[in-house]
Amino acid sequence: MKPVQKELLVVALGGNAFLRHGEKRTFENQNKRIRNASRHLVDLIEEGYRLVITHGNGPQIGDTLLRHEAGEKMFKIPALPMDVCVAETQGAIGYMIQQALRSELKRRRLNKVVVSILTRVIIDKRDEELKNPTKPIGLFYSAGELRKIKQRHPRYAFAYDRARGGWRRIVVSPNPKRIGIAEQSAIKLLVDSGCIAIACGGGGIPVVEEKGWRAIGIEAVVDKDLAGERLATLIEADRLVILTDVDAAYVDFGKSSQKKLHKISASDAREYMSEGQFSAGSMEPKILAGIRFVENRGKSAVICELSKVTEALHGRSGTTILPSL
Amino acid sequence: MKPVQKELLVVALGGNAFLRHGEKRTFENQNKRIRNASRHLVDLIEEGYRLVITHGNGPQIGDTLLRHEAGEKMFKIPALPMDVCVAETQGAIGYMIQQALRSELKRRRLNKVVVSILTRVIIDKRDEELKNPTKPIGLFYSAGELRKIKQRHPRYAFAYDRARGGWRRIVVSPNPKRIGIAEQSAIKLLVDSGCIAIACGGGGIPVVEEKGWRAIGIEAVVDKDLAGERLATLIEADRLVILTDVDAAYVDFGKSSQKKLHKISASDAREYMSEGQFSAGSMEPKILAGIRFVENRGKSAVICELSKVTEALHGRSGTTILPSL
Repeated sequence: MKPVQKELLVVALGGNAFLRHGEKRTFENQNKRIRNASRHLVDLIEEGYRLVITHGNGPQIGDTLLRHEAGEKMFKIPALPMDVCVAETQGAIGYMIQQALRSELKRRRLNKVVVSILTRVIIDKRDEELKNPTKPIGLFYSAGELRKIKQRHPRYAFAYDRARGGWRRIVVSPNPKRIGIAEQSAIKLLVDSGCIAIACGGGGIPVVEEKGWRAIGIEAVVDKDLAGERLATLIEADRLVILTDVDAAYVDFGKSSQKKLHKISASDAREYMSEGQFSAGSMEPKILAGIRFVENRGKSAVICELSKVTEALHGRSGTTILPSL
Repeated sequence: MKPVQKELLVVALGGNAFLRHGEKRTFENQNKRIRNASRHLVDLIEEGYRLVITHGNGPQIGDTLLRHEAGEKMFKIPALPMDVCVAETQGAIGYMIQQALRSELKRRRLNKVVVSILTRVIIDKRDEELKNPTKPIGLFYSAGELRKIKQRHPRYAFAYDRARGGWRRIVVSPNPKRIGIAEQSAIKLLVDSGCIAIACGGGGIPVVEEKGWRAIGIEAVVDKDLAGERLATLIEADRLVILTDVDAAYVDFGKSSQKKLHKISASDAREYMSEGQFSAGSMEPKILAGIRFVENRGKSAVICELSKVTEALHGRSGTTILPSL
């Protein structure tokens, strides 16, 4: 009984797919969660959906940057720049997902190939945000520590955090509305050939292009949901599915008028967003990714809990964003 | 003028493609070398060769393990196991090669897609070497330090180094004669579709399979040239090309009878090898990889300098191993 080839989904896994808040970031803990996520993803594959999986790297990139810093301090190993650190997290997380997913497929005797593609996102050099690093990452430093780090890494930018009383490294957080996915055609090729691809992890490795040919990594972090929208749009996925740890998006959250959003149009979602209904850096980018996806001809975007993903795709859970009439 | 589709080559880049001995392992130094290597590789592509590129990770995995150790000591971030660390190096190095290669292709107006595939090598569980870790990695520890590390990582194995008077972590170094390449079909697919693939970096991410379905990473290091042979054989490459920093293999090296090997048969190469003509851990695995490749129906294996690779493929430089008559 071969399942019918159904829709192509881009599924974005949030940090909670790897770790619960406060849980120790050991390999064993992360692997247990990833194996759990894989079971839900393979349920989708058994239903006949074709998948491209993308994932966040929030906790992992934080750890990676600290490891590079610690290696430099303890062993004088030069810390590598942000783009290479993102590539490292794509390696580590991509491997863990690919291994868990392929194992679960084999257990169910499904002969699907799973492949992780290192993915670069090409950011428009004219992007205004590139001039203005704002996103703080990593540790707090004293003025003395700052001087030393600046000597070793003259290109890093820093900002003073008044509340915490320390300096912190800052990177740009470009608006990925116009970004390209450098490896888009390879991802499409693999998917069209029946592979399951893992791509664009951690929002992608951020690069700009010079002279029309030379790509150069930059110190930037791209939101993984917004990058996931670009990926889904560019490979012409049918649906964008954003998995998270809340069951749906809400308006008037925590008030007596609180309402769960089941199905909404992109224009209604935009209106709620402009009212500030969604938490910045958490639900808001998910909603925005969903809006952009359907405005770019996607059929629908679904935001739901990992364990409810099959139900959500059948419209029985989560929040679905639909094109405006 | 479109070049004719020529042979499929698996090209193995050694550590010297990224760094000269003693050079500081900064991003800038590594990137400069990789850009240089890319120019030679794109020369091959311009000649019409199809390429799969593999690479070592010797210095990088060393740095990665130390960063994980430093992160654990300074910031209590759990160190991740060997397989995940190899995946991190595949991410970082794969990205750097892919970026340099794609940029050089674009500069020459060649529209080829370059894609890095995270690659796992499946090691036979019955492999005798798996019972016996012998390859030392990372730092030397005192007995006191050892106790602490063993508490944190009960699965690590250690050996006492008499000469240096300290304990050192040891991992297995499986003979990859029988290993499989888990992502082999995806690599083949990409290459057959005209992509340039980067795969099996650092000898591949080492895993074993349990119950016929569950893959589990192990604490192992696979020689990158021997893993490159498996890759080349399994994707049915025409030639295996191993790039290094010496111009060719020699017999009686350093003696008055010294002789450069230009073209040799696999059986002659085996004989020289049994005489101990090649340095263990350096030229010997390259020769062995070449022998195995042609014994597994490969047309020829070439060992040469990076800058002479085009000439070597035309038989004017390096050492070529041919099938025995």
